[in-house]
Amino acid sequence: VPFVAPALADSSNGTIGSGYTGGPLLLRSQGSFFVGGQDEFSDGLVSPNLQPPSTTLTPTGTYTVNQMYVHYQVPYFSGRVPIVLIHGCCLTGKSWETTPDGRIGWDDYFVRQSHPTYVIDQVGRGRSGYDPTTINEVAAGTQPISALPAIRTAGHEGAWTLFRFGPVYGQVFANEQFPVEAAAEFWKEIVPDFNGALPTPNPTLLNLSTLAVKLNGAVLISHSESFAFPWQTAVINSAGIAGIVAIEGSCSNQSQNVAVLAKIPTLILFGDHTSDFPNWTTNVQGCQTLVQQVKAAGGDMTLVVLPDVGIFGNSHMMMLDKNNLVVSGLIDQWIAARVERGHRYGQQQ
Amino acid sequence: VPFVAPALADSSNGTIGSGYTGGPLLLRSQGSFFVGGQDEFSDGLVSPNLQPPSTTLTPTGTYTVNQMYVHYQVPYFSGRVPIVLIHGCCLTGKSWETTPDGRIGWDDYFVRQSHPTYVIDQVGRGRSGYDPTTINEVAAGTQPISALPAIRTAGHEGAWTLFRFGPVYGQVFANEQFPVEAAAEFWKEIVPDFNGALPTPNPTLLNLSTLAVKLNGAVLISHSESFAFPWQTAVINSAGIAGIVAIEGSCSNQSQNVAVLAKIPTLILFGDHTSDFPNWTTNVQGCQTLVQQVKAAGGDMTLVVLPDVGIFGNSHMMMLDKNNLVVSGLIDQWIAARVERGHRYGQQQ
Repeated sequence: VPFVAPALADSSNGTIGSGYTGGPLLLRSQGSFFVGGQDEFSDGLVSPNLQPPSTTLTPTGTYTVNQMYVHYQVPYFSGRVPIVLIHGCCLTGKSWETTPDGRIGWDDYFVRQSHPTYVIDQVGRGRSGYDPTTINEVAAGTQPISALPAIRTAGHEGAWTLFRFGPVYGQVFANEQFPVEAAAEFWKEIVPDFNGALPTPNPTLLNLSTLAVKLNGAVLISHSESFAFPWQTAVINSAGIAGIVAIEGSCSNQSQNVAVLAKIPTLILFGDHTSDFPNWTTNVQGCQTLVQQVKAAGGDMTLVVLPDVGIFGNSHMMMLDKNNLVVSGLIDQWIAARVERGHRYGQQQ
Repeated sequence: VPFVAPALADSSNGTIGSGYTGGPLLLRSQGSFFVGGQDEFSDGLVSPNLQPPSTTLTPTGTYTVNQMYVHYQVPYFSGRVPIVLIHGCCLTGKSWETTPDGRIGWDDYFVRQSHPTYVIDQVGRGRSGYDPTTINEVAAGTQPISALPAIRTAGHEGAWTLFRFGPVYGQVFANEQFPVEAAAEFWKEIVPDFNGALPTPNPTLLNLSTLAVKLNGAVLISHSESFAFPWQTAVINSAGIAGIVAIEGSCSNQSQNVAVLAKIPTLILFGDHTSDFPNWTTNVQGCQTLVQQVKAAGGDMTLVVLPDVGIFGNSHMMMLDKNNLVVSGLIDQWIAARVERGHRYGQQQ
């Protein structure tokens, strides 16, 4: 019996991974492009373990590395400041999309707030690829084992407490906002992290600078591993960085950059339960010190620990938490006030 | 002087990577989710080369592998058959997005034709991640060098002729449709291919079956490495596969599956210049034989070599060629005629 296509309700009524959609979305354009990248010549393009070897894809040739993938959406009614979303360790741009329990992510939220939105995959991860040639050369015996690239990924157990889903693996804080019932879906977002194998400085930083300059003014939103990336980028070139939202990371090593940091309006966010963990307590305290230094230099830097403003239970992954749109709403209010038409700049757009 | 945000014309008028946008796009919903995935326990989550070792992300723990990333968009006016886009070797779902020279891709085209559209990253690539634990175990000395995973990627030189940009590297066919002036941008789409390191059968196949069943009827569009994936998926479970468009690959090893293949309307496409290369000549001839076998079994399988219907100069990467929307238009006409309301099924949707 030939296949007869059934009614296509499942995909058209949004029952797959959609949840709250925010209603119809009108885009002016969307697409993707790369920033950066350099060519290298290698004899390690194909593993010697691949048998039979391809007659057309040979081990020796030219290969492009260090480029950064960017996916963008421009809303139909635009004119607000573009936003660049920069994911953290062992994750990709997927972090900003649909939550593990099927609600809308911040990519969708910000474009619905009329911001052109740019989601990147860090160099070495996701659609930005990574350089496997050393692995293949070790397999071929032309490089020593010690040359193998440094790669890390996150186990469920370690991530549970690092991301503050609860005090120990499998336990949940009473007011926890992370959708732990969908943790199995969240673990699928984790990918190998190649940052330890990248050249210094991390090519993502220069690529972010190139992107911000191209955008002619953008707010960089960073998270965790990428927390300090906007500042490190600004030290290279602050042109194009209209504002910074740095979420959940370490302010150490920024004291020498205060003069640069004071040029750029910055919001620093931490979630709940930081005081239950020594490393998070240290991170919050370090950022309190940095804020004082930047303010003393005339800068506009604000630190918000969410429970201090009445938003409780947020995890490290606040862009995926059940109240994720409360947090993005707070960010957008800050952008409107301090970047787009704040008293410091007096702009009307 | 504090940063003053300039006019934001660059991103809002679409000068970055946009080109022809097709006008405003109205979506009902969009987002992403994963299909499949299994947990494994490993002591190779963190490379011993990473110094100092993280105190929170330890080498030992549980890690999820073999899941498949899916990004979807549902158009506001829907009801047409969903489309699943499956990329080829050494590439990711990026293949279906903006072309290297900045024109719209097939993801955008098909959603503008009112198809819910699902772009996957094959297991082991892009946002689907890969399993690095064996690499880290070899680095730690707990596994032999021979255990290193089989990884391949494509060099510019080999890909140039395999993808039929021209007869030899650096030369271009007179009627070539691939935007070779943007080849440097195309090379950035290439990532390491982990398929040689995946379990058998490739988990992408089962994940595609799960996705098609969830969608309750979908057209699978495959390319190159994934050319036969829809058929291999149908052999596992043909439920949910409403149609197949297989682009540029090998029909070998399908003769034993003719009974299954005859159940599903199928379009096979090849571009131009296949007769200039022995491997492409063999591929076209093999598919001509398969079409005869499937037709003899009562199936609906059509082979189109594009120059035979007056469409000239297409490369292996026809979704990126300058006439890419001519080719996708041909595919959509076939879908409307043979899958959605064709004489074989007589459906009106």
